[in-house]
Amino acid sequence: MSKLKFAVGVDLGGTSIKVGVVSKEGKIEKKISVDTLADGGPDIVIHQIKKGIDLVLDKYEKQVVGIGIGSPGVVAAKKGMVEHPPNLPGWEKVPLGKIIEKAYKIDTFVENDANAAAVGELIFGAGKGLENFIMVTLGTGVGSGLIINGKLYRGETGAAGELGHITIDYKGPQCNCGNIGCVETYVGNNYMVERVSGELGSHPESKIFELLDNNLGQLSPKIICDAANSGDQYAKSVVVETGRYLGYGLASVVNLLDISKIIIGGGVAGFGKLLFDSIQDTIKERTLKSLKERVEVLPAKLKNEAGILGASALVFYQS
Amino acid sequence: MSKLKFAVGVDLGGTSIKVGVVSKEGKIEKKISVDTLADGGPDIVIHQIKKGIDLVLDKYEKQVVGIGIGSPGVVAAKKGMVEHPPNLPGWEKVPLGKIIEKAYKIDTFVENDANAAAVGELIFGAGKGLENFIMVTLGTGVGSGLIINGKLYRGETGAAGELGHITIDYKGPQCNCGNIGCVETYVGNNYMVERVSGELGSHPESKIFELLDNNLGQLSPKIICDAANSGDQYAKSVVVETGRYLGYGLASVVNLLDISKIIIGGGVAGFGKLLFDSIQDTIKERTLKSLKERVEVLPAKLKNEAGILGASALVFYQS
Repeated sequence: MSKLKFAVGVDLGGTSIKVGVVSKEGKIEKKISVDTLADGGPDIVIHQIKKGIDLVLDKYEKQVVGIGIGSPGVVAAKKGMVEHPPNLPGWEKVPLGKIIEKAYKIDTFVENDANAAAVGELIFGAGKGLENFIMVTLGTGVGSGLIINGKLYRGETGAAGELGHITIDYKGPQCNCGNIGCVETYVGNNYMVERVSGELGSHPESKIFELLDNNLGQLSPKIICDAANSGDQYAKSVVVETGRYLGYGLASVVNLLDISKIIIGGGVAGFGKLLFDSIQDTIKERTLKSLKERVEVLPAKLKNEAGILGASALVFYQS
Repeated sequence: MSKLKFAVGVDLGGTSIKVGVVSKEGKIEKKISVDTLADGGPDIVIHQIKKGIDLVLDKYEKQVVGIGIGSPGVVAAKKGMVEHPPNLPGWEKVPLGKIIEKAYKIDTFVENDANAAAVGELIFGAGKGLENFIMVTLGTGVGSGLIINGKLYRGETGAAGELGHITIDYKGPQCNCGNIGCVETYVGNNYMVERVSGELGSHPESKIFELLDNNLGQLSPKIICDAANSGDQYAKSVVVETGRYLGYGLASVVNLLDISKIIIGGGVAGFGKLLFDSIQDTIKERTLKSLKERVEVLPAKLKNEAGILGASALVFYQS
């Protein structure tokens, strides 16, 4: 009788840390969320990570074959070294992998969260069985992970996959990263909200006003999505436009890498079919002939628990 | 005593086919050029390729360990199938590798010419010892080959490396490929000549006029280069601008792939230091922090004979 094997998945975020015990089939057996307490600096955050792991390990301890951690920032994977994560003040370089592995004496794998999401889709989700795909995570930023020949492509230092910082207009808006006209400056949550705030005045008929109860400070991608789903023309045009901007960047990636499958996840992916069609149509419009027919834009399968599942997938991916 | 081993390199172009016998050290022992006679269709062109190979094989035949062919178009490498090469009318899909291998009973390797150039630099040139680099070939088009983990990255069908068809302005000029604002529409030879033709009227002091003998039809990147080298301010600004456009596209690639070494070859690379500095500065301006310090733009080492050497390198790369 084969023994059940589990992985612990840790989704390290700026405000909360989600931890779960996950089976090889991608079933979450137990999960918990603890506060990150990011302002406390690395020691406090690591203490919180351990607290979360302790809380889920419990009776599963002997069956846990590894711990996977999805972290913001650049991660030098072999050493599990987390470098300059945004939203975690005081972290310069922290050997998170080594620290956790030493504490629990369980193999530990750390990856950047966008890369973990790609491995999550590869092992448990829409990327199962695909040799090559680009996994795009839409949120405050626009991250991506590249699966090439069935493996996570990390680049020279683990920083690969910055789809958000591909330029689609070299004279475009300034991005926080220092570059100009990055995809992120068109479709990142904050930029999108800012753009819509500026345009709303010209669309007095938009249902967005109702949903906002006239409090513009509440504007979010979720509100735009709800308005679009209720048939609001302006909100729908924002969703289509967002898909087009993403499509401009992705067409470049598809032309460069000759990879035809794209999986989209993260909050804005909730924009649904309208968004997906817009992305796919734009890519097809703009890629080379031999690619047009092959290009396919797929929704991520892992939804709310993508963070925990992606992190735990790092364990099953390695073993 | 180790026997000397040679490869035959075939550089298949739209007007001429260059064929050479090359040693493992990258020395061309013998070379020849025959007309492509492209208008005759595949059979005539293949006849010409064989004519070229026959002319160089001669006394080397027993020491030749393989034949490498650099071809335009997309090449499905495992089968040596050449698909839709531009400038070779009547070619849809031609199993060039199989045909040549059968005729000579010598292992034959066919690759797209931009990929062959990358392998050429990897085996004989500026990419020797590098694990990862992007090889850019500037000419009528803008091609590139990607070396990742010491290997040629081909993509799903062998079409990878289309740096020329990365968009740097989604509202930019229409490209022949169907896309908009591609790098190629800013720096490809024809586009560059067209742009300069349009602007020259505003630069009556430019030395380009002298060099052209007032015959605008003679305008070429070479003339612009000569004018820049003689100190012409306008021509210099064109070179710097060309570097900036290339830099915009390359910054996206560097951010996406976390690859920091870029090798530039092809005719326009003759623009020299002014061009290279402009490319490198632009990339550094626009890439993420951790990459800025590592980015390096290098001139290709293989010059006039890059085509033959790249094709022959395909043989030594495989064995």
